[in-house]
Amino acid sequence: MDIKGFKFSAVEAAIKKPGRLDLGLIFSESPAAVAAVYTTNRVKAAPVVLSRERSAGGTAQALLVNSGNANACTGRKGLEDALEITRLVAEALGVPDESTLMASTGVIGVPLPMDRIRVGITPLIEGLASGTIEEVARAIMTTDTFPKLERRQGKADGRSYTIAGIAKGAGMIMPNMATMLAFLVTDAAVDTAWLGKVFRDANDSSFNTITVDGDTSTNDSSVILANGAAGNAPLTAESKDALQFVELLNEVLLSLARQIVKDGEGATKFVTINVKGAKSDAEARQAAMAIANSSLVKTAFFGQDANWGRIIAAVGYSGAQVDPDLVDLFFDNVAMTRNGVFAGGDAEAMGTETMKKRDFSVTVDLKLGEGKATVYTSDLSYEYVKINADYRT
Amino acid sequence: MDIKGFKFSAVEAAIKKPGRLDLGLIFSESPAAVAAVYTTNRVKAAPVVLSRERSAGGTAQALLVNSGNANACTGRKGLEDALEITRLVAEALGVPDESTLMASTGVIGVPLPMDRIRVGITPLIEGLASGTIEEVARAIMTTDTFPKLERRQGKADGRSYTIAGIAKGAGMIMPNMATMLAFLVTDAAVDTAWLGKVFRDANDSSFNTITVDGDTSTNDSSVILANGAAGNAPLTAESKDALQFVELLNEVLLSLARQIVKDGEGATKFVTINVKGAKSDAEARQAAMAIANSSLVKTAFFGQDANWGRIIAAVGYSGAQVDPDLVDLFFDNVAMTRNGVFAGGDAEAMGTETMKKRDFSVTVDLKLGEGKATVYTSDLSYEYVKINADYRT
Repeated sequence: MDIKGFKFSAVEAAIKKPGRLDLGLIFSESPAAVAAVYTTNRVKAAPVVLSRERSAGGTAQALLVNSGNANACTGRKGLEDALEITRLVAEALGVPDESTLMASTGVIGVPLPMDRIRVGITPLIEGLASGTIEEVARAIMTTDTFPKLERRQGKADGRSYTIAGIAKGAGMIMPNMATMLAFLVTDAAVDTAWLGKVFRDANDSSFNTITVDGDTSTNDSSVILANGAAGNAPLTAESKDALQFVELLNEVLLSLARQIVKDGEGATKFVTINVKGAKSDAEARQAAMAIANSSLVKTAFFGQDANWGRIIAAVGYSGAQVDPDLVDLFFDNVAMTRNGVFAGGDAEAMGTETMKKRDFSVTVDLKLGEGKATVYTSDLSYEYVKINADYRT
Repeated sequence: MDIKGFKFSAVEAAIKKPGRLDLGLIFSESPAAVAAVYTTNRVKAAPVVLSRERSAGGTAQALLVNSGNANACTGRKGLEDALEITRLVAEALGVPDESTLMASTGVIGVPLPMDRIRVGITPLIEGLASGTIEEVARAIMTTDTFPKLERRQGKADGRSYTIAGIAKGAGMIMPNMATMLAFLVTDAAVDTAWLGKVFRDANDSSFNTITVDGDTSTNDSSVILANGAAGNAPLTAESKDALQFVELLNEVLLSLARQIVKDGEGATKFVTINVKGAKSDAEARQAAMAIANSSLVKTAFFGQDANWGRIIAAVGYSGAQVDPDLVDLFFDNVAMTRNGVFAGGDAEAMGTETMKKRDFSVTVDLKLGEGKATVYTSDLSYEYVKINADYRT
């Protein structure tokens, strides 16, 4: 699992319950181009405020992350804590403060346990000698049931490079918590401005197509570091190998996004929602997101109930233009409605069979235009309510 | 329970399970001024399409309603069925088809059982001799656990009048179902145009301030008939008794709206969400609705977890302007945050105590302006998931 010029480390700093990694570090031995996407929530956690400013500079070398505490809604002290921790890490690594980013996930509104984090920094730095990216993937888990990793290998100028990524959480499905975090590293050399563009695009077609409960967290952060250790000429839009890089980047991000939905809290289903024939791609996305976020649709998924009426109703209130007398609706390839009315025959039985699968699709054809969108969602189960109701009690 | 000039009836037409009223009729002996508000869903059930057109005429005399079947997503046949049923009722009553409205609630996508409804019409008409509005309130119940009624008495020109109303359901919280229905009758004489205005306003500050799951149904209908049997001069904005009428109308609608939330599927809590200090009333409403519809917030209500961080996060993504360093948040009168950070002291313990109540409030002060809004919501419980997952299986 070697990505040239990157080192990893993770330790237990007793921020979470004992026996669980909760402090992680990604370090590039040389300054790396950085691109990032942060939460659109107007309430941003302290590490987001800090990292957003620093990553705008285009270069970074270290990324520190803790789980167990979101450092959100912690006011002035929260920002001071994040500044102090990144300064301590930067000093120990011998890099500028400004090249050290931070991300946090966990409980909102509680100050970071600074004493324990300060103590954890020394073993964290020492751990870089032997740590793996998988350990960092474990250190960012909260209610995740498995660590999320993906990697791809490509070539640029004949030099092999790797894109590796880790992620946690889904939207803001965390109990008392915030956060989807994703960290990518590549040893490819990539032009900073172009990296920013393709990374934003790749996030739009991956993390921005998934939803578990429609809540946007205070801490969402998706960051990529590209350190150029592979030795290729920096990739730009004009590079002959640009397309491959974009494809691999998209594959890594989409894989991480799908893993997040599969591990959604209490999820028993992974459902792909396709909307086509909308007036525009934007309207298709509106309709798909309305379906994907409807509690009524999601409880029907959990109940394995081929309840197409709820899906049509969600499309109807989504804001997308719809002619009810045109809508076709499919579970996988089973037509449930044709032109807005029940398809009849054995559609009910076949639709119900389809919904018993762990992984199926809903396709809605509005037949009004060329707009299309795909999003991914999970179901709404007893377990979701249990996890989110009982967390702190 | 007499409202002058109105008659009521309800029968079992075997649309629902045996032993339950499922066909109701409200009849005004003289033509009544009518005002109505219908679903904004672009997918509208057949009875909504029909009633919307007819109520636009400003006069109506009969309102037929069935439960057990929404007559939604039923295409051309659905509309023909609604036309036939209202024609049969109009003929039996000796009134024009155009003055006969219809509403339906129940399963989506299944044609109405026309044979049984045709058979039911004769006893329904006969029942007008002795029926009560409470029977109609029972006939529109689906997963409702109690019938919802309210009434007020006022005076206009020295003549006593009554405003009575019945309702069912909450938003679109129905399993495989649609619908919030509300029907009001008054024997006051009211100018049609003015009735339209004050009824829309009263709906905005009652039914449009409640949410159970954020889904908007295909069948929502709120209708008022004013037949003038009290003998007053028709009320207009200029009438000296106009204000009292508006106040009583609002009281009836708000009472029905609150009853709907209290009877939300699986609800164990009734929560009043107040947002103040927003840049505008519209932004206050955006923020309040984001809180009221957040699955994370609602599961915390169910878990009696004083999880204010989720509430602040919901405000943050609502679209309303917010300065995180200003926000004050209260559970009833217990301050949980001051200026965006935890209030400290015994706030946690007192907040938790507050949330153990059946009925409490959340107040968020954004301290940015004069905008304010109040909405009502329930919690998200195991029972909600159970009702909505298991309904058809």
